[in-house]
Amino acid sequence: MTSKPEARQLCHPSDPTVVQPHKQALLNRLNRIAGQVRGISGMIEGDRYCIDILTQVSAIQSALDAVALQLIEDHTKGCVQKAVRQGDGDAAISELMGVLRKISR
Amino acid sequence: MTSKPEARQLCHPSDPTVVQPHKQALLNRLNRIAGQVRGISGMIEGDRYCIDILTQVSAIQSALDAVALQLIEDHTKGCVQKAVRQGDGDAAISELMGVLRKISR
Amino acid sequence: MTSKPEARQLCHPSDPTVVQPHKQALLNRLNRIAGQVRGISGMIEGDRYCIDILTQVSAIQSALDAVALQLIEDHTKGCVQKAVRQGDGDAAISELMGVLRKISR
Amino acid sequence: MTSKPEARQLCHPSDPTVVQPHKQALLNRLNRIAGQVRGISGMIEGDRYCIDILTQVSAIQSALDAVALQLIEDHTKGCVQKAVRQGDGDAAISELMGVLRKISR
Repeated sequence: MTSKPEARQLCHPSDPTVVQPHKQALLNRLNRIAGQVRGISGMIEGDRYCIDILTQVSAIQSALDAVALQLIEDHTKGCVQKAVRQGDGDAAISELMGVLRKISR
Repeated sequence: MTSKPEARQLCHPSDPTVVQPHKQALLNRLNRIAGQVRGISGMIEGDRYCIDILTQVSAIQSALDAVALQLIEDHTKGCVQKAVRQGDGDAAISELMGVLRKISR
Repeated sequence: MTSKPEARQLCHPSDPTVVQPHKQALLNRLNRIAGQVRGISGMIEGDRYCIDILTQVSAIQSALDAVALQLIEDHTKGCVQKAVRQGDGDAAISELMGVLRKISR
Repeated sequence: MTSKPEARQLCHPSDPTVVQPHKQALLNRLNRIAGQVRGISGMIEGDRYCIDILTQVSAIQSALDAVALQLIEDHTKGCVQKAVRQGDGDAAISELMGVLRKISR
């Protein structure tokens, strides 16, 4: 058979396909975040008080932050660790640092 | 008639209704953010590379941050300024600080 | 005599002198932060474990954040409120927003 | 001889001594940050304008953030990579995540 199930776990420039280890949990979280974003639109349409809207925005920021941290942890334990074992550790860590510089915490 | 259309612009505990001055722009931004969140779900479902997903998460964080700053500016120029003129400035500013402590920057 | 002690409380482009209402508390905090920064230098000189050093860096970030929030609150309750009463509210708030965009939270 | 100079480079619970690879550069940066903190004390003592003080606080936050990112990168390229090669990768990465949760970005 030509199916290469292991290819799905690679995280390499040549085949950067990654099955997230917490895939369903992440999708559930993102679903909830999408609902929260729509909730804020509803609050603005309903002329709700600014402070209440901002409190909801900060809740989304926290939820998105948790998603980012989960992705970073799984990426580091998965892809980065694999790269280290293959002798590509420094490049993988430099790439990770590029994302850490951008992600808000 | 007793209708008080101006009441819609009040931002007081007794009638905390606020028509956002950039209402349509905010709704457009939130619409785009909701689309970006769905985009990330799609990337995770499609087993896309973690770093590419994280880059998109950081784009949403920036977009959400811009929404927060717009709301804070409009709230301060609107509600807080009105409260100051009515002698309730300190309370309005303490409330604003509570939100600034929570909002990520 | 023409001394104008009240001028010291102005926060205007023409005389931007401001006696911080929590002056001594801020100076104490900054003193402690300076000590924490020297403490980190000592840890690096002593070849201490990276994670322990980073934990101290995050403590300084929190302490500095608290200083920033105190300054923002006092500035808003003082200078901004005064500007609003003098009809210069929008300019003072725009200036404040410029700082909020830069300050990490 | 029983001297183990390499022990100085270990980053293990049993001997968590780490010579920072950018030791002198970090010490220089921290020296500059300590000077900036004293500079802010001087501004507050001199009753300088709040916004100018806050601008300096944000400069320190950026400088401290750069120190944190340097420490994180060096720790990950050094200690974490070594732990991965020794089969302790997951524990080292969990420890790193604990710090990433605390560090402001």
